[in-house]
Amino acid sequence: MSDANEGYALAVDIGGTKLAAALVEPGGRIAHYDRMDTPPDVDAEGLWRSLEALLDKLQAEGGGSGPVGVGVGCGGPMRWPSAEVSPLNIPVWRDFPLRQRLRERHPGLPVRVHNDAICVAVGEHWRGAGRGRANVLGMVVSTGVGGGLILGGRLVDGASGNAGHIGHVVVEPQGPPCKCGGRGCLEAIARGPGLVAWAQAHGWRPDSRGATGVDLAEDARRGHPIATSAMKRAGRALGVAIASATHLCDLEVVAVGGGLSQAGPLLFDPLEDAFRAHARMEYAREVRVVPAALGQTAGLVGAAALVFAGDRYWSAD
Amino acid sequence: MSDANEGYALAVDIGGTKLAAALVEPGGRIAHYDRMDTPPDVDAEGLWRSLEALLDKLQAEGGGSGPVGVGVGCGGPMRWPSAEVSPLNIPVWRDFPLRQRLRERHPGLPVRVHNDAICVAVGEHWRGAGRGRANVLGMVVSTGVGGGLILGGRLVDGASGNAGHIGHVVVEPQGPPCKCGGRGCLEAIARGPGLVAWAQAHGWRPDSRGATGVDLAEDARRGHPIATSAMKRAGRALGVAIASATHLCDLEVVAVGGGLSQAGPLLFDPLEDAFRAHARMEYAREVRVVPAALGQTAGLVGAAALVFAGDRYWSAD
Repeated sequence: MSDANEGYALAVDIGGTKLAAALVEPGGRIAHYDRMDTPPDVDAEGLWRSLEALLDKLQAEGGGSGPVGVGVGCGGPMRWPSAEVSPLNIPVWRDFPLRQRLRERHPGLPVRVHNDAICVAVGEHWRGAGRGRANVLGMVVSTGVGGGLILGGRLVDGASGNAGHIGHVVVEPQGPPCKCGGRGCLEAIARGPGLVAWAQAHGWRPDSRGATGVDLAEDARRGHPIATSAMKRAGRALGVAIASATHLCDLEVVAVGGGLSQAGPLLFDPLEDAFRAHARMEYAREVRVVPAALGQTAGLVGAAALVFAGDRYWSAD
Repeated sequence: MSDANEGYALAVDIGGTKLAAALVEPGGRIAHYDRMDTPPDVDAEGLWRSLEALLDKLQAEGGGSGPVGVGVGCGGPMRWPSAEVSPLNIPVWRDFPLRQRLRERHPGLPVRVHNDAICVAVGEHWRGAGRGRANVLGMVVSTGVGGGLILGGRLVDGASGNAGHIGHVVVEPQGPPCKCGGRGCLEAIARGPGLVAWAQAHGWRPDSRGATGVDLAEDARRGHPIATSAMKRAGRALGVAIASATHLCDLEVVAVGGGLSQAGPLLFDPLEDAFRAHARMEYAREVRVVPAALGQTAGLVGAAALVFAGDRYWSAD
């Protein structure tokens, strides 16, 4: 069932705010972990050198034997599977040949790169909330809304590696404009910055900590009425989109992670209400919508799964 | 690539208005075809005997050698893959053990039963508008709205054989009630009887032919303004749902068949407008939404594909 049964995978998670990496055992346990803030004010090569330094340090901690493969989750979009990446939140990388660079650094090893939200979904399927189920949607609700789709026990890639992108399922055809150019996408409503804007327009005044979706979720937990309404708004939109995905893909488990999911029941209760109101086909009634189980490291675990369980999670090459 | 390379498949299509059957060659060509109206006023066993008589007659025409397998598309819902069927439009069959009966009739042969809309999608992928593409949604827009989903070159079944059911993707969360118990499903808006009711409420008076979705589509072709508005309404709802499915599943081709698709550009033009307005992610721009290519026999061709190309279309047993 595995491409490699011994040694560790070098797992990497590349985002706009942090670079994280880990040595992951074949069972999914993280043996060593390190991270750094994504450096500002560097060019494309400077960012690559920062990543290399992080990986050098981590591998030194790991001791003698090298990794058996490299798995990477990186912010999209990217050309896939060649992984020339152009992460929305990393402007200095545009068509950066990430996979090729890593192959040059690790000659002879499998190097597998996928969208970061897809890696989270894979992690949740391999070792998290979707474990043991064949039909799972994993979601990340954060600055954006993304996801990955496992059907029949295998990761679905779609035509260009973008399957699972539930953020652009339409939940309100006449709804707010989305940065994709469409209108009423789930992401246009439920992404952190969208919710923050909505809450501020309705009178929410964040304190000195900041005005992110996580801050809004924290205020909701403290009982702030506008923040609570914002979570309801996000929850309802998520419930409708998940109902559509459930009917279309005949799912068993939907695992919802990302910063906004920290709001807990304030998000999940209205989500569940909207989901149950719309997911009414008999086959949809057994579906469970649950919080993601792996937290911050889901993406690294999923990146490792691209290496260790490529039969299920890696169709390319 | 095939389960059987010689001989013919016995393909069967079971619906509320007609029973159809065919002897299908390994390449997909229909060698013999027969059909009958679904008999009214019979009980469950009477309907089974009618089906047997149709199959006997067809097999006699086919001459000496028996079929190499039996493929069946049947109206849903059904328990799958055991195929105890309870077709909405055939009230006398409730939990009727269709697959088991066919196995008793054809001992030793593969007998494979799937939802009729899924067989249409499979037919369109195997030999129709989706041929040669790996990521295809096939749809039937008729009395209901159904479909089937081929991803990565293989039919996706989902947890209970219901994947592809785009009729219950939500296109208007506050829209009209759906018979599933939800609200604003694509099917609630775009199914023939729903459109007919909407058109009649807006002043459409069908002539003596009847008042089905096909009649409405014909009136739209003749320029009737309310019928034309009804096609627009259906087209827009279809476009929104197909945009959601495209973003979620990263499709290449969507093939739309069924009686309502006979309205041609009067349906497909507003569909395309709504689709292009909502399917704005870069990876969705290459998708083509096209009329189904196989017409009335798509379901029989797909049923035969369950036998001849089980590696791609049959995951059960």
